Amino acid sequence: MSQSLNAPQHFVNQVIGQQSGSLNKLMPVKAQGYGIAPVNIALSKYWGKRDTVLNLPMNGSVSISLPGLGTETTITLQPTTQNSPPPIDQIKLNGQALKPNNPFCVRLSAFLDLFRQKNHAFYINTHNTVPTAAGLASSASGYAALVLALNDLFQWQLSTQKLSLLARLGSGSASRSLYSGFALWHKGEQADGLDSYAEPIDTQWPELCVGLVKVNVQQKPVSSTTGMQNTVKTCDLYQAWPQQAKKDMQSILNAIEQQDFEQLGQTAEHNALSMHATMMATWPPIVYWQPESVAAMHTVWQLRQQGVAVYFTMDAGPNLKLLFLKTEKPAIEQAFGDISIIQPFKGQS
Amino acid sequence: MSQSLNAPQHFVNQVIGQQSGSLNKLMPVKAQGYGIAPVNIALSKYWGKRDTVLNLPMNGSVSISLPGLGTETTITLQPTTQNSPPPIDQIKLNGQALKPNNPFCVRLSAFLDLFRQKNHAFYINTHNTVPTAAGLASSASGYAALVLALNDLFQWQLSTQKLSLLARLGSGSASRSLYSGFALWHKGEQADGLDSYAEPIDTQWPELCVGLVKVNVQQKPVSSTTGMQNTVKTCDLYQAWPQQAKKDMQSILNAIEQQDFEQLGQTAEHNALSMHATMMATWPPIVYWQPESVAAMHTVWQLRQQGVAVYFTMDAGPNLKLLFLKTEKPAIEQAFGDISIIQPFKGQS
Repeated sequence: MSQSLNAPQHFVNQVIGQQSGSLNKLMPVKAQGYGIAPVNIALSKYWGKRDTVLNLPMNGSVSISLPGLGTETTITLQPTTQNSPPPIDQIKLNGQALKPNNPFCVRLSAFLDLFRQKNHAFYINTHNTVPTAAGLASSASGYAALVLALNDLFQWQLSTQKLSLLARLGSGSASRSLYSGFALWHKGEQADGLDSYAEPIDTQWPELCVGLVKVNVQQKPVSSTTGMQNTVKTCDLYQAWPQQAKKDMQSILNAIEQQDFEQLGQTAEHNALSMHATMMATWPPIVYWQPESVAAMHTVWQLRQQGVAVYFTMDAGPNLKLLFLKTEKPAIEQAFGDISIIQPFKGQS
Repeated sequence: MSQSLNAPQHFVNQVIGQQSGSLNKLMPVKAQGYGIAPVNIALSKYWGKRDTVLNLPMNGSVSISLPGLGTETTITLQPTTQNSPPPIDQIKLNGQALKPNNPFCVRLSAFLDLFRQKNHAFYINTHNTVPTAAGLASSASGYAALVLALNDLFQWQLSTQKLSLLARLGSGSASRSLYSGFALWHKGEQADGLDSYAEPIDTQWPELCVGLVKVNVQQKPVSSTTGMQNTVKTCDLYQAWPQQAKKDMQSILNAIEQQDFEQLGQTAEHNALSMHATMMATWPPIVYWQPESVAAMHTVWQLRQQGVAVYFTMDAGPNLKLLFLKTEKPAIEQAFGDISIIQPFKGQS
């Protein structure tokens, strides 16, 4: 292994088994690689990196994937000519060709550099099956689908656990989008990052519902990556977050195992509000909430006062994701009107 | 001093100099006592008690009083008859007689018990000169005015510092409402609470403006006292609050001394958002924010992006208090329309 390799390249080579002198793992075997992956919603959140280069989290997290909502990606290698200029990937998102200087493309191409041979360029065609208005983060499903497509193109035949490691390098929460159902992303302890991957949790919960309250479709004012880094740097209250996150994760795991919905809902809502608390106690403040977010929260709390067991979680954005059991579906629909309701273990309803 | 005296009674006796065998300090000297005190807005906040009995704070705080907005109170002693039933105070608020079981009356009467001789009942007539719609806390000015009225009725001739101690026992932030301008409430170190009082800060800042954004006039869903106690008990992030509060208080004091408005505004906003962060990371969550609160915050941040130096602070309620210098008044009025603007060092404008 060359000493000049940077840490992410070294990490990728270790995961895919690329060694100097061995078989080249970056030669396409098929004409086209294909991958599909679901979005996931964290029940106990990831917020803050302990290593920004290898994308290693301060704390572990647990998620639920949403079937039918996610990203579908195909990847092909472009023919290259000798003496060609540096490769420019062609990236199509939802049928639309993006300009190379689009921030989405810049980030994607930087990730693809880790899988690039010589001056090869990639052609990526990616579709989000997430309704844009649902306000679900697509970077998790996006990087998971991309890694699956690369695995298909290069025929690495890697384990899902290893693909989870690669997806993590693209976007932390993508590590969890390799699985359906519940997934646990281990914080990991090693400096090389090889033990920070997600695993599936082998528990079904057919009655569990997720409601998507659509608040806002605008671009996030602050990216998660920038937000996390500012929080770690400037938020005094964040000191106590990793410990709380650890405790909450254990509580979510117990709640899943016991099928204890109250514990699941309470912990998920408390955890999400605590994550948002660290954001707003950052300087400059990070407040993803919109007026409609707060209105929806108050509706949730009013419903609970009326005896409806509904809780919410929120990611780095203004949208609420409701958690409830199927029996409460009529009450939720009455209070929230037109929301998408998903039963993760029974497909979309 | 009787051993049977409870801690607040012992504290009051120490402050007013009431000793067994000495002159009775609880005999009215005048027919009526009168007091008036301003509301105050904390620039670095008080949140959390280290002693709930003596109302001692986890951290010190700094405030600015708003001239012209506050509470005016008169107090008289009611004639008593022997064998009379337990005293029932008569309390009039803004011209309206309140029922004795009103929570406001219950709390006030419990405080008056500390100054009650035998079966005496008090007649309290109190007016808030705060427009109700401004959403300013009136307990601070209320308890400060009451303590001034008691001092007048009983002619204790106590120092303002001692009156601040008594007011603190009624409502923590009332300790700061004995003063105009900036005030510093010392956390104190002693177990007896005699060193936890407020003092004036001898600095004028004529250009400083406070804008009152009116969001909501409804009753608070959670009282400050209950909220604080739940935060201290259930909020993991609160662990880091006392240290941040100490740092922020020093920064506010420096900003006042240096007349550094950017530092004042940034610290006050960061401190207020951090306090609200500890509230929402409490379980059950305490979110005083209303949709309009968040809308007003986003307006403030947009104004800052446009180069207008305006910051906000918020107390345990949904209303924003804007901080800016007089030069920005036109921009603020344009963005917020009909808001009350006060120049604390120049009277109301």
